[in-house]
Amino acid sequence: MTAPDRYDPREFKALTFHDAVPTFRDGTDTPRSYLERCLETIAEREPVVKAYVSLDEDDARAAADASSARYKDGKALSAIDGLPISIKDLLETKDMPTQMGCEAYTGNFPKNDNAAVWALREAGAVVFGKTVTAELGGSHPGPTTNPFDPTRTPGGSSSGSAAAVASRMVPAAIGTQVGGSIIRPAAYCGNVALKPTQGGINRGERQATSMSTHGPHAGCIEDMWQVAIEIASRAGGDRGALGLFGPATPPAAAKPERLIVLETAGWAILDDDSKVAFEGLLENLQQSGVTLLRRSDHPLVEKLEQAVVDAPSITGNITPWENRWAQRNLVNQKGEFVSDRLKATLAKAEAMSPDDYRAAMLARDAAQRCHAAVGNLADAMITLSCPGPAPLWPGDTQGQPLAPRPTGDAIFNTPSSMLFAPCVTMPLMSVGGMPVGAQVMGQQHQDARMTAIARWILDNVSPVVVG
Amino acid sequence: MTAPDRYDPREFKALTFHDAVPTFRDGTDTPRSYLERCLETIAEREPVVKAYVSLDEDDARAAADASSARYKDGKALSAIDGLPISIKDLLETKDMPTQMGCEAYTGNFPKNDNAAVWALREAGAVVFGKTVTAELGGSHPGPTTNPFDPTRTPGGSSSGSAAAVASRMVPAAIGTQVGGSIIRPAAYCGNVALKPTQGGINRGERQATSMSTHGPHAGCIEDMWQVAIEIASRAGGDRGALGLFGPATPPAAAKPERLIVLETAGWAILDDDSKVAFEGLLENLQQSGVTLLRRSDHPLVEKLEQAVVDAPSITGNITPWENRWAQRNLVNQKGEFVSDRLKATLAKAEAMSPDDYRAAMLARDAAQRCHAAVGNLADAMITLSCPGPAPLWPGDTQGQPLAPRPTGDAIFNTPSSMLFAPCVTMPLMSVGGMPVGAQVMGQQHQDARMTAIARWILDNVSPVVVG
Repeated sequence: MTAPDRYDPREFKALTFHDAVPTFRDGTDTPRSYLERCLETIAEREPVVKAYVSLDEDDARAAADASSARYKDGKALSAIDGLPISIKDLLETKDMPTQMGCEAYTGNFPKNDNAAVWALREAGAVVFGKTVTAELGGSHPGPTTNPFDPTRTPGGSSSGSAAAVASRMVPAAIGTQVGGSIIRPAAYCGNVALKPTQGGINRGERQATSMSTHGPHAGCIEDMWQVAIEIASRAGGDRGALGLFGPATPPAAAKPERLIVLETAGWAILDDDSKVAFEGLLENLQQSGVTLLRRSDHPLVEKLEQAVVDAPSITGNITPWENRWAQRNLVNQKGEFVSDRLKATLAKAEAMSPDDYRAAMLARDAAQRCHAAVGNLADAMITLSCPGPAPLWPGDTQGQPLAPRPTGDAIFNTPSSMLFAPCVTMPLMSVGGMPVGAQVMGQQHQDARMTAIARWILDNVSPVVVG
Repeated sequence: MTAPDRYDPREFKALTFHDAVPTFRDGTDTPRSYLERCLETIAEREPVVKAYVSLDEDDARAAADASSARYKDGKALSAIDGLPISIKDLLETKDMPTQMGCEAYTGNFPKNDNAAVWALREAGAVVFGKTVTAELGGSHPGPTTNPFDPTRTPGGSSSGSAAAVASRMVPAAIGTQVGGSIIRPAAYCGNVALKPTQGGINRGERQATSMSTHGPHAGCIEDMWQVAIEIASRAGGDRGALGLFGPATPPAAAKPERLIVLETAGWAILDDDSKVAFEGLLENLQQSGVTLLRRSDHPLVEKLEQAVVDAPSITGNITPWENRWAQRNLVNQKGEFVSDRLKATLAKAEAMSPDDYRAAMLARDAAQRCHAAVGNLADAMITLSCPGPAPLWPGDTQGQPLAPRPTGDAIFNTPSSMLFAPCVTMPLMSVGGMPVGAQVMGQQHQDARMTAIARWILDNVSPVVVG
């Protein structure tokens, strides 16, 4: 499977797993053979895509063989038994190092399993490979390139997870999001992905920030949901949270009668072609019988728009403050192995007081109230998942100021992060030959409902190609 | 200062700091001299009390000298500049190992500062010594003995912090509580202590559980509050929380017009002498003009009693589940260095499902609603801080079943932990020559109010001695 020249959502066939399971059951295919096809794709694409920081092919083959034997015995552990899945290199894995995209953690190998990784193994998934993350989940990029154009970023910080799925190396991968690190790279790479309700999936050892989630990237809605619910049904949600709600199998497609179109701060910086593409998508939604509600149509939608327009700055205060002490300790001990981008974020946090943090928390609370207030106006919200196609990323130039957003702009993602809201990105647009995603976003705990709506849209609404 | 034979709250003089500050300012005393007196007490008492796991006298002297110089220059950093304070060995400290009372962490020395420790240093406190904790903050005890009777437990898991303050080694120490680990040992040792509102004080790297707090043990209310607010004004609260509210100096004493007397599940196991002592204290409160409201007096108090009677089992499900993956990873790697007590707790957690955890969370939520509902009935609640005097602890006997609660029973503490409620324990009773504490507990964020009420009670209500 070579890299396509241009991305076209009408033609691109992502790698899927759920449709292979019947062939495992009837013996015409095996998880081991499925894995070998993944390894072949990796061998072909990885030299350019650079999605992985660690690969453990022998362990993966052993796990796939064990899964094959379970199918042969009619004893598959779950609907994802045998599914090859890669893990963002922020999460601990007992059999692979966890280096977090940060030189200070070179060789770090705690030999623990993150709770979600533990759950995946319990479900029989073939946990396989650590994917590149931007440094500590921040903005300083790793080497991964966009599978549809190696001169562009795959997005971040879940760079490798997004790129591995988009280049058909694996059918699913685990990402994490604090600001926009699941949905944006998925959107730049043409994946589906779920950023769950805050607390929906147990983050295990990664509980340090008040808004971050684990979530699956996948080639299709069915695999996306199945991975999420198999984790949550074993490891639950975060400490203090009720965890992901929803069915044990992918929810059926559900037509939304009415969608709120959310502009967010991203509208002001959106390029013309992407705006044309998104308006085209909205037109297609209307032709499919969906009613749209925009900010001018209802004062509470306008109120929500006003509440989320500052999401970039609000989230940009909350997370650096929450990471402040851990990062200060790291810089004190290993400052020479930490990027200038991270140091700049730390300096910003260290200029804050507890009351600055409180102010950001109160703004977040207020936005959540505004979000709850529109809960009865529509079935979901829809907006872009990223501000246009993935930007070019030629790397930093020595002696020049650091590029502010080398993995792209999270401007369309900070609202859902701040609102603790579940969202699903859908690969429904192509702009200039590159993927651009649209997302549906719901009230807290409506993860399954958003999945059902995204499934309906993907099944029923024509994608849009511009430029 | 030798160990007293019997504890009498009317006579015992705890070590205090706030009253020494004027002598630092006028030059008649210095923080260095104050520290030297602490070191002398430690040299005398430590062989029996065993409060410390690490001591760094040279670093402490250097820090005290720096503080002395600041006072001389009229440039004290805060009201706790020069205050010698010891840190429970669960919190990371950059200059001392963090071994967490667990053999698996022998020699563990991450060289980081916990956010609260960082704040104490910023305020000029002399951070000094790591105090013994029960294993990983659980129930498996360390070597510390009760300062008032070495055959008895000091309580736990903040065993060393409680004992160091009670034996006048330091005027204040940091403890942590998940179930009852601040208030119970403080009560067994005759300290005052604050268990803040959940999230009130930044736990730094220790954010893994949904109900745990850092809090100060101290010899007096003034030092207790000052330590708490100096930390919170620099490091804020936990991620996602607004942090401790209250004045920058100790709140003035405030008379409660009305107190709810809470029995909790502890009432049923309370020994007769302790019940007599507590009823005597209630009588003294009434004689001081405080109206008491008991469960038979109001249906909402009765409802709250019913909601908290299961606090031991609810908290006993929540915390083990939240620690499950970290402890499984630890046992997988270093099982031979982990106690059987911890392994039993892990086994219990591993028998739970995510829905069992959800059920415990919903019970906790419901109890918090019942708690909020009594918020207008009285100024605070009052109950015992521990079920009688500290129990004898002769150690485990090989071949015998493990004693279930070697550091005492948290039965009077799990309610405030579960309710996220601030509470202050007051050394107001002696039973059989040992300290027994009483606590005031308030609505979330009423930390300063509880401090003010405790101050008034300590100033105005006669202690009780029984047996």
